[in-house]
Amino acid sequence: MLDVYTQISSIPIGYNHPSLIKVMSNPNNMSAFVNRPALGIMPPENFPEKLAESLLSVAPSGMSRVQTMACGSCSNENAYKAMFIWYRNKERGHNIPSDEDVSSCMINQSPGCPDVSILSFMGGFHGRTMGCLATTHSKAIHKLDVPSFDWPIAPFPKLKYPLEEFTRENAQEEARCLEEVEDLIVQWRQKGRPVAGIVIEPIQAEGGDNHATPDFFKKLRNIARKHGSAFHVDEVQTGGGATGKFWAHEHWGMDDPADIVSFSKKMLTGGFYHKDELQADKAYRIFNTWMGDPSKNLFLAEVLNVIRRENLLEEVTRSGKTLLQGLYQLQDQYPNLLSSARGQGTFCAIDIRDDATRNSIILRARDKGVLLGGCGDRSIRFRPALVFKEYHVHMFLNVFSDVLAEHN
Amino acid sequence: MLDVYTQISSIPIGYNHPSLIKVMSNPNNMSAFVNRPALGIMPPENFPEKLAESLLSVAPSGMSRVQTMACGSCSNENAYKAMFIWYRNKERGHNIPSDEDVSSCMINQSPGCPDVSILSFMGGFHGRTMGCLATTHSKAIHKLDVPSFDWPIAPFPKLKYPLEEFTRENAQEEARCLEEVEDLIVQWRQKGRPVAGIVIEPIQAEGGDNHATPDFFKKLRNIARKHGSAFHVDEVQTGGGATGKFWAHEHWGMDDPADIVSFSKKMLTGGFYHKDELQADKAYRIFNTWMGDPSKNLFLAEVLNVIRRENLLEEVTRSGKTLLQGLYQLQDQYPNLLSSARGQGTFCAIDIRDDATRNSIILRARDKGVLLGGCGDRSIRFRPALVFKEYHVHMFLNVFSDVLAEHN
Repeated sequence: MLDVYTQISSIPIGYNHPSLIKVMSNPNNMSAFVNRPALGIMPPENFPEKLAESLLSVAPSGMSRVQTMACGSCSNENAYKAMFIWYRNKERGHNIPSDEDVSSCMINQSPGCPDVSILSFMGGFHGRTMGCLATTHSKAIHKLDVPSFDWPIAPFPKLKYPLEEFTRENAQEEARCLEEVEDLIVQWRQKGRPVAGIVIEPIQAEGGDNHATPDFFKKLRNIARKHGSAFHVDEVQTGGGATGKFWAHEHWGMDDPADIVSFSKKMLTGGFYHKDELQADKAYRIFNTWMGDPSKNLFLAEVLNVIRRENLLEEVTRSGKTLLQGLYQLQDQYPNLLSSARGQGTFCAIDIRDDATRNSIILRARDKGVLLGGCGDRSIRFRPALVFKEYHVHMFLNVFSDVLAEHN
Repeated sequence: MLDVYTQISSIPIGYNHPSLIKVMSNPNNMSAFVNRPALGIMPPENFPEKLAESLLSVAPSGMSRVQTMACGSCSNENAYKAMFIWYRNKERGHNIPSDEDVSSCMINQSPGCPDVSILSFMGGFHGRTMGCLATTHSKAIHKLDVPSFDWPIAPFPKLKYPLEEFTRENAQEEARCLEEVEDLIVQWRQKGRPVAGIVIEPIQAEGGDNHATPDFFKKLRNIARKHGSAFHVDEVQTGGGATGKFWAHEHWGMDDPADIVSFSKKMLTGGFYHKDELQADKAYRIFNTWMGDPSKNLFLAEVLNVIRRENLLEEVTRSGKTLLQGLYQLQDQYPNLLSSARGQGTFCAIDIRDDATRNSIILRARDKGVLLGGCGDRSIRFRPALVFKEYHVHMFLNVFSDVLAEHN
């Protein structure tokens, strides 16, 4: 099988990588596997050192702190909590909470449990626990029947691809969305539910691989700053190298891209980076029993070594170009079947005529030994591991081309 | 060190157990560690078999289904979602959702995101993600500054210990709380936020090791049934053997104790058991990328073998009796310092004069080689592993006795 979906984009360097097997068989690592600690109170002695050589070695610009978590949803939930705590401390002028704050929070009431909000984007996906789910707007099946929060939802730009051919229209569309963001921030402040944070994916993945330009993200980051909201970039799916940079937000070329960056999947552990200001003011405010899993950090440290040693980000950039060129060619060849090929690195996608055809293509590809995944209403997303070389791209394109011929 | 807290009650059979080390070094298990799958779409071929020999072999009475999750909070979040989905399907007469349901849920609005609720108890702890947190009421620091839901909160019985000496008063107190539960269910239905589920711990752990009698839980289960609410027993801390039975709810002696039982910690993987009716009606409604971690199931299967082979539940019952007797004696000896010794199996606790003394005792015990943890306002909770033998109890009691003498 050629896996171009990799367990929903969560396998960084392929299956059974010898370097990862070596981690397993190193007796020094045994304890991390069989004695899982409560990291928040009893981290292994070498844990700070292990963090420095793994997660902190790839920290986003401007961030020197990281909090590990067990999965993507918990990462975003706790990132939201960090933003709420930061925002409310600001509102209190960093004074200690009032007696009313303390007593009302115990019974879920304001002001202790305040009416503050997170602004998210239509088409976004940030997980399925109840805080995350209030910011997820990709498919009804994720949200139906689950109580939610009255939080503002902005339109995400619907751009035309290839981006460079539609710069003027796309710029207009992005301007429209940014204007709406500012309007919503003002409206929700007036409603008494101020926006503590804005959360966004660099590329909306689950929602259909929707891209926006660096200009859009720069302006959005400025809007957040102007209105005193934290800016949270969710890199759970985009992070870890698949876009050709370690973090997708690096494509924006900013020194101060975000206040919080969350991750999981290819990072093998969940967690979030944050700026110093976003550190909770007291211990045990961001806390749970496990708070991650040191055995996953051991694997991650080795994954990072492999990425560096084998120049995998360059490899991804090279493979990604070949993949996208191939998709453009197929799109020209099958204009009634394919449209909107797009991507960064190997983080590519293409739209299919309709949902039924998309699903049929995925099944036929699987029967021919290629695993693919869908996203959005009628897209296929390509999510190979970072070891997907140009010859893999050609193998994939050959099979895909055969499958398309059967569907034309 | 003698660890009587075990990573917040999450180490089942002690550190470096040879059986767990053997799991690690078995080459057949390698793939589960280095190739973590997306369990919801690509479970390993032998996963059903592995579930049968691990989690399903200890399924609570009346439950033949289990859903794994990565941690305790995710387990409860998804258990709540399962209850909401079940409840709304019932309300819809199992018809397909309306167009309004589907469109409104995408923007967090009713009826798609309905105003339904989970009834929880003051003093309860069910996790710290935003759904869980709305049902957690143990300490203000957990909840302050985080938006929440207007859900009903019932009083948990405040019983007098030892329970058997205060049966009449305790029965009155439990009746008062049950009456309040029914009142709240009616009130919240009238408010348009009907109670889809009731969540409770068999022993409120984080909230101070608060016990209630089997009679209370039986009546509560009946109230849930009478009002059409699901009954969710959160065994994240109580489950896995520490009370002398595998699940604490087994002490209630019921054939049909619950609709959902969630777990994590000593089970090494999170998850929840549920009755057939609580199975979501469609795929992908209860879903995330990892949905657990098969490598943890391998360890759990071996933990269960050890528990059976070494009769650890009997061991826990024996050690627990000795521990509780020792606590009673110390309480008689230091009536100004200690009160309300209580417990089931080794899942014991005792109240200390005040918070400062409690914390000082925990620190001094640590300096003498015994790790303890607090809970509630001024309690110490004892959470040894299941391999805590009677001689460990004596070691502990000796140290504890010395520490108490210094504080008298």
